[in-house]
Amino acid sequence: MDLGLLYSGGKDSTLAALLLDEFYDVTLVTGHFGVTDDWRHARDTAETVGFAFERLDLDPDVAHEAVDRIREDGFPRNGIQLVHQHALERLAGQGFDAIADGTRRDDRVPTVSRAQAQSLEDRHGIEYIAPLSGFGRTAVDQLVDARLEVTVGPSEEIDRADYEAELRSLVAEADGPEQVADFFPAHEQTYVTDVR
Amino acid sequence: MDLGLLYSGGKDSTLAALLLDEFYDVTLVTGHFGVTDDWRHARDTAETVGFAFERLDLDPDVAHEAVDRIREDGFPRNGIQLVHQHALERLAGQGFDAIADGTRRDDRVPTVSRAQAQSLEDRHGIEYIAPLSGFGRTAVDQLVDARLEVTVGPSEEIDRADYEAELRSLVAEADGPEQVADFFPAHEQTYVTDVR
Repeated sequence: MDLGLLYSGGKDSTLAALLLDEFYDVTLVTGHFGVTDDWRHARDTAETVGFAFERLDLDPDVAHEAVDRIREDGFPRNGIQLVHQHALERLAGQGFDAIADGTRRDDRVPTVSRAQAQSLEDRHGIEYIAPLSGFGRTAVDQLVDARLEVTVGPSEEIDRADYEAELRSLVAEADGPEQVADFFPAHEQTYVTDVR
Repeated sequence: MDLGLLYSGGKDSTLAALLLDEFYDVTLVTGHFGVTDDWRHARDTAETVGFAFERLDLDPDVAHEAVDRIREDGFPRNGIQLVHQHALERLAGQGFDAIADGTRRDDRVPTVSRAQAQSLEDRHGIEYIAPLSGFGRTAVDQLVDARLEVTVGPSEEIDRADYEAELRSLVAEADGPEQVADFFPAHEQTYVTDVR
């Protein structure tokens, strides 16, 4: 069965790919609004870890809606959730038998409820799989340590391709670069450099 | 890392074992109240699919409490949930680094909430993993078809070792065999005969 996995090049979505690899024909799929070229980082990581890769065009209107929401809220959670749901809807229409993402049990955002999962499945005739949703934060960290080589650093310096990079860029365009740190609290990000 | 997986010999817990096999040293663990010898079916299946096996002694008082609850409710859900939570608590004290079960996203019982999972982890210093909790019913069925040989039949005729067999036996003892069908609605059960 062909499965498309929403992919950022980070440790969670890479670990999700390893978990599914024995059971599905996995293609790593990175959403892209056309704002920056950050999707190329995910493509390079996909190649390094040995998976097929596709780029998925997302609707720039959704990026702007998300950025408006983030500027209004003063924090990114709801905007990122909006983009994730849009990306899953787009991915569900790409012809895969199943789609997946790297959401974990202890994540606050993005989240996909059971009702949202079933709705995606019913409307698109696909299966939605969240292979890390039964793993807590520590269990994920242990598997990452065992299986992946990663580089860790502050969000603004790490080359990966989650939605944050493009949303940050749009916020900087709207409010100036100095506002980005107000809306996106400093946190460590990782990207994967190899599989052990 | 050593992981103990609550195991019935059925398709869900066997599929959970296959999903975890690449990442943990998996031991299949079957809970047992000392009421019947049904745990031997799980041991035989564990051997067939090639995993280490352990029996886990459960507290007979919990079986009686569960049966009282089932007879009072007229349906098995809450009694089975009680037994499952007891089995996880016992398993968490067996010295494994991580414990797991075969609960699926769409199961109504047993369920383990995020708060229950985190409480188990914090109190016992282990990780709790539910590898199928990110898979819906259809996705599980597709993977079972692809990877397992199974035998399907009505619950009362299938040799497996979930808690139901021992609880049924206690209900029959208390109320007579003809009452069992009243409390446990007829449903199809499976047990695994091989891995493809």
